[in-house]
Amino acid sequence: MAERIQIREVGPRDGLQLVATILTATQKLEWCRRARDAGIEEVEVTSFVPPSVIAQFADAAEVARGAVALGGFVASALVPNLKGAHRAIDAGIQKVNYVLSASEAHNMANVRRTTQQSLDDFRAIIDYRDSVAKGRVHIAGGIATSFGCAISGSVDESRVLNIAAQYLEMGADELIVADTVGYGNPAQVRRLMSVILKEAGTVPVACHFHDTFGLGLANVAAALEAGVRAFDSSIGGLGGCPFAPGASGNIDTEDTVYLVAALGFETGIDIEALVALRRDIERWLPGERFAGAVAKAGLPKTFTNRAAPAREYGE
Amino acid sequence: MAERIQIREVGPRDGLQLVATILTATQKLEWCRRARDAGIEEVEVTSFVPPSVIAQFADAAEVARGAVALGGFVASALVPNLKGAHRAIDAGIQKVNYVLSASEAHNMANVRRTTQQSLDDFRAIIDYRDSVAKGRVHIAGGIATSFGCAISGSVDESRVLNIAAQYLEMGADELIVADTVGYGNPAQVRRLMSVILKEAGTVPVACHFHDTFGLGLANVAAALEAGVRAFDSSIGGLGGCPFAPGASGNIDTEDTVYLVAALGFETGIDIEALVALRRDIERWLPGERFAGAVAKAGLPKTFTNRAAPAREYGE
Repeated sequence: MAERIQIREVGPRDGLQLVATILTATQKLEWCRRARDAGIEEVEVTSFVPPSVIAQFADAAEVARGAVALGGFVASALVPNLKGAHRAIDAGIQKVNYVLSASEAHNMANVRRTTQQSLDDFRAIIDYRDSVAKGRVHIAGGIATSFGCAISGSVDESRVLNIAAQYLEMGADELIVADTVGYGNPAQVRRLMSVILKEAGTVPVACHFHDTFGLGLANVAAALEAGVRAFDSSIGGLGGCPFAPGASGNIDTEDTVYLVAALGFETGIDIEALVALRRDIERWLPGERFAGAVAKAGLPKTFTNRAAPAREYGE
Repeated sequence: MAERIQIREVGPRDGLQLVATILTATQKLEWCRRARDAGIEEVEVTSFVPPSVIAQFADAAEVARGAVALGGFVASALVPNLKGAHRAIDAGIQKVNYVLSASEAHNMANVRRTTQQSLDDFRAIIDYRDSVAKGRVHIAGGIATSFGCAISGSVDESRVLNIAAQYLEMGADELIVADTVGYGNPAQVRRLMSVILKEAGTVPVACHFHDTFGLGLANVAAALEAGVRAFDSSIGGLGGCPFAPGASGNIDTEDTVYLVAALGFETGIDIEALVALRRDIERWLPGERFAGAVAKAGLPKTFTNRAAPAREYGE
């Protein structure tokens, strides 16, 4: 029995942060539904940032409620601060993916707080969850700029490990180690992820890679070798980096699933269904740059791991 | 002292096989000269295929002579048969990169000969070299479709190993193991390359990857782990695959050098000089699709391995 890899589709969140077109809630929910039908088990459906900061997510509560109503997958949301967590949990989200930056400068630029202040907020989020939604809402601790920062350059691994340790001590249900600006390389990924996995024990650990410098899938392969079994990705590789105009975004979901399946892991995901969804997203987002090789080349003749989920959902 | 990695620029050959524009010999030689000045030590400058098959290489002898006259790098040429080898050696080329396909069907489609007939031709090429250019011309044995074939699907590793063994027995100066249609994955690459490296002993072994399904750089990382220390790549990732329209071509030279250097190896190659050359090639080849992330994003702030060669050549 092949080992299972979790792929979290973050396109409706990270993928939409910088695009020119604001999608309707209906389109975002179609993205979620069809990702689910293709076999994706968690979708990061929106971001509870202040609507004044990213207009794309002004409908966060509506999308969160709609996604939960769809059923059949875990509807999670990115949350950058305590207020966002309140909004997300109050909207009924099933999982909060909290994020802070290991880089002090990046955290300050993003949320105008020190990394330690953001860590203290995480404890308050756990407390809020425990008081209103205990046993119903999972909370992941995300560590942005874990492999380097476009503002301050290299990020000391001891900072990342210290944040991971604090997250675990506070009861995070999952760790998400993010290469926010794509600075990571396979050797670095293998080294850091091996240590974090050991520290995390039974707590799940996911990696979030960007393909800014072309190393996204090489980093996935390295993380798999280290023992990571969950990855964030975005259909079409959407997700620009504000610090690198014209650069590639998140790793592409179709290509990531292809790599993982080609290596013999099980994903339960139908790549051709993802490509069909991508074709519609391309129509919804005219002028955006879509990455990914499988959507252009098709699948190789030797590829047989076309797992399509045999699930049915009421709608 | 960091270990050295050889990057062979194959753009003037593989990169030009399918483009719409026929470059002048002057442009091709500028590609060679500036690749050399950026620190590249071998350029596959042309292909000695019949001009009736690929018009782009009708000037093969002129380019070969011009490249050798430039000096300061190894000028090699792809050769698919005995007649091409005669032409290449007679033109004064310094290195013949012979190629046959491990896939019988692919070899037949390419050169209308069985793989064994093509292997027999290799012996005749070695004999010709020994009779007219002994000690002056190196001959590499290339194995196309080593990781799969768009016509016949999977390719048995024992076929690849058998061809490698015959090449070595006949005195090949180098082996080039090629993933012609991009079917390889990191696990497969690590496994096969480990065996071939052991078999090759002190004979150099290079890998030639295509990025058709997005795994090109992940395969480079896997090959590096297996011990491979030489790679083919093409500036801008040029090099379409005739069996996958719209698909990506060779792995991109700029990104490959970045990966290798980020992993701590020495290349002696100046990435920014490659990007500058790429800008001109983009102008020479309007309408072509250029791949590669570093040329779009620039180099990360943390990247310090900007080795620029301190060499001077007379021109």
